[in-house]
Amino acid sequence: MTAAQIEFYWDSASPYTYLAATQIEALAARYGASVVWKPFLLGKAFEATGNRAPATIPAKGKYLFQDLRLWAQHYGVPFRFPSVFPVASLGSLRVACTLADADIGRWALAVMQAYWTEDRDIGQPDVLKAVAATLGWDGEALLAQAQTPAAKDRLKANTAEAVERGVFGAPTFFVGKTMFWGNDRFELMEEVLSGRLAA
Amino acid sequence: MTAAQIEFYWDSASPYTYLAATQIEALAARYGASVVWKPFLLGKAFEATGNRAPATIPAKGKYLFQDLRLWAQHYGVPFRFPSVFPVASLGSLRVACTLADADIGRWALAVMQAYWTEDRDIGQPDVLKAVAATLGWDGEALLAQAQTPAAKDRLKANTAEAVERGVFGAPTFFVGKTMFWGNDRFELMEEVLSGRLAA
Repeated sequence: MTAAQIEFYWDSASPYTYLAATQIEALAARYGASVVWKPFLLGKAFEATGNRAPATIPAKGKYLFQDLRLWAQHYGVPFRFPSVFPVASLGSLRVACTLADADIGRWALAVMQAYWTEDRDIGQPDVLKAVAATLGWDGEALLAQAQTPAAKDRLKANTAEAVERGVFGAPTFFVGKTMFWGNDRFELMEEVLSGRLAA
Repeated sequence: MTAAQIEFYWDSASPYTYLAATQIEALAARYGASVVWKPFLLGKAFEATGNRAPATIPAKGKYLFQDLRLWAQHYGVPFRFPSVFPVASLGSLRVACTLADADIGRWALAVMQAYWTEDRDIGQPDVLKAVAATLGWDGEALLAQAQTPAAKDRLKANTAEAVERGVFGAPTFFVGKTMFWGNDRFELMEEVLSGRLAA
């Protein structure tokens, strides 16, 4: 039997994606599964599916603040709502598309920690370079690569693939063909990974 | 210290509300809390807040089927997507508004079991009468009372109160001032009830 894979469609602009990103590797490890981090453009998935960002409904937006705070407490991770919101996540996602698969998760987490805990505007190239530096990477070179057609095309392909598979929000996970939307589905995903629930 | 109350805004037309209804009394009992069942019109809350039913986004609607099946398996409760959907839940909610507080939960669960597990159209008065009969109640009398201004006004008042408090979907719960949207927030609600998380 091959080890399970968890495919993780992430966009650094999404607060619940940050929360999920802080938990997913430990979750996967509990089931001997691996995580495939897939950067995608959530805004394009909203456009393609007709879905809307939760904060576009004022009552939902208000609820989000309390809900995010409780989840962060629950996971024991820092969280601070950024002053620049929504943020231009495109650059951070294109950088991810230049990385080897094994490095994408580290980048995703570092970028989302900068934005969702340190209030740094990840839409600014200098911020992305500084985040790269904390990982010991050459930010200047990465940002240059992020402008190549290869990086842009990979992000477009990931986004098209996500929409094709039914993704309409973030974070979204797949275990085989079974889709899970939201960090609030970890409970169900774990039961599928353990075989307690039939996918 | 007084026992905690869980206020539960429910509309029998909502599948996640059915799932929540199967669990909420046992959950409350684990914390010595009581449940206040509050019928409200979800459609009016959608109108008031600009929120929309999830099934209005096709990709979300498709996901719902799998998600609901997994939750039902997770809770170990029956679930069958009804052939009449959406359903006219107004009559069932007005009947709830004629009942003593202590009886509303039994009615809510019985109505939602009829609709969400037996594919019975709870928009039909005869179905509501039959459900009342299973509880040993006089359905004819209840349906007559449901047409009185008192019943209609109570439902309107509950709905207005819900919207005023920030409700935009169902099921929605309150523990004191802290709102929880969705059965997928039970985990957080239990931590608030136990005092592990600060509301």
